[in-house]
Amino acid sequence: MTKSIFYHAGCPICVSAEKDILNFIPENEVQVIHLGENKTKVKDAEEAGVKSVPALVLPNGNVLHINFGASIKDLR
Amino acid sequence: MTKSIFYHAGCPICVSAEKDILNFIPENEVQVIHLGENKTKVKDAEEAGVKSVPALVLPNGNVLHINFGASIKDLR
Repeated sequence: MTKSIFYHAGCPICVSAEKDILNFIPENEVQVIHLGENKTKVKDAEEAGVKSVPALVLPNGNVLHINFGASIKDLR
Repeated sequence: MTKSIFYHAGCPICVSAEKDILNFIPENEVQVIHLGENKTKVKDAEEAGVKSVPALVLPNGNVLHINFGASIKDLR
C-alpha cells in the first residue's frame, strides 16, 4: 500500500477533517472512502484497525483516528 | 497564527502520532509542544479547543484530535 486511505461517513466532522487533511496530503496520495455509501469497505477498514471515523490509514499501516464522528460499529 | 501547533504529552501514542504527522507537515510549519514538560501551555491548548492529546491545532483554528493519548484535564 503506497497511498493513504481516508475513511469517513459523510458527517460534518468527517467533512471538516477531510478538508484539513487534504491540505497536507496531495490528492493523488490519498484515497477517500465514504463508508456510509460503501458498506462493503467497512470490513477492510476494520481489518486495517479503524475504530472510528474519520480516520486516516497511512502507508506504514498506522491508523490516525481524527476527532470522532462515528464508531465503526455503527457503520456495519 | 501561521504555524500549526502539535500538542502532546510524551506518551507512546503521542510520539507515534507525532512522527506520522511530521511526515506530512514540514518541520518549519509546525511547532511541537510537550504539555507534560510545559504545564504553563495547558491553558493555551485548552483555549484553542484541545480536549485531548495528541492534537494538532491548525492555522485556520481547527483542532484535529488524533487517536487518544490523554485527556487535557489530566495534564493541568
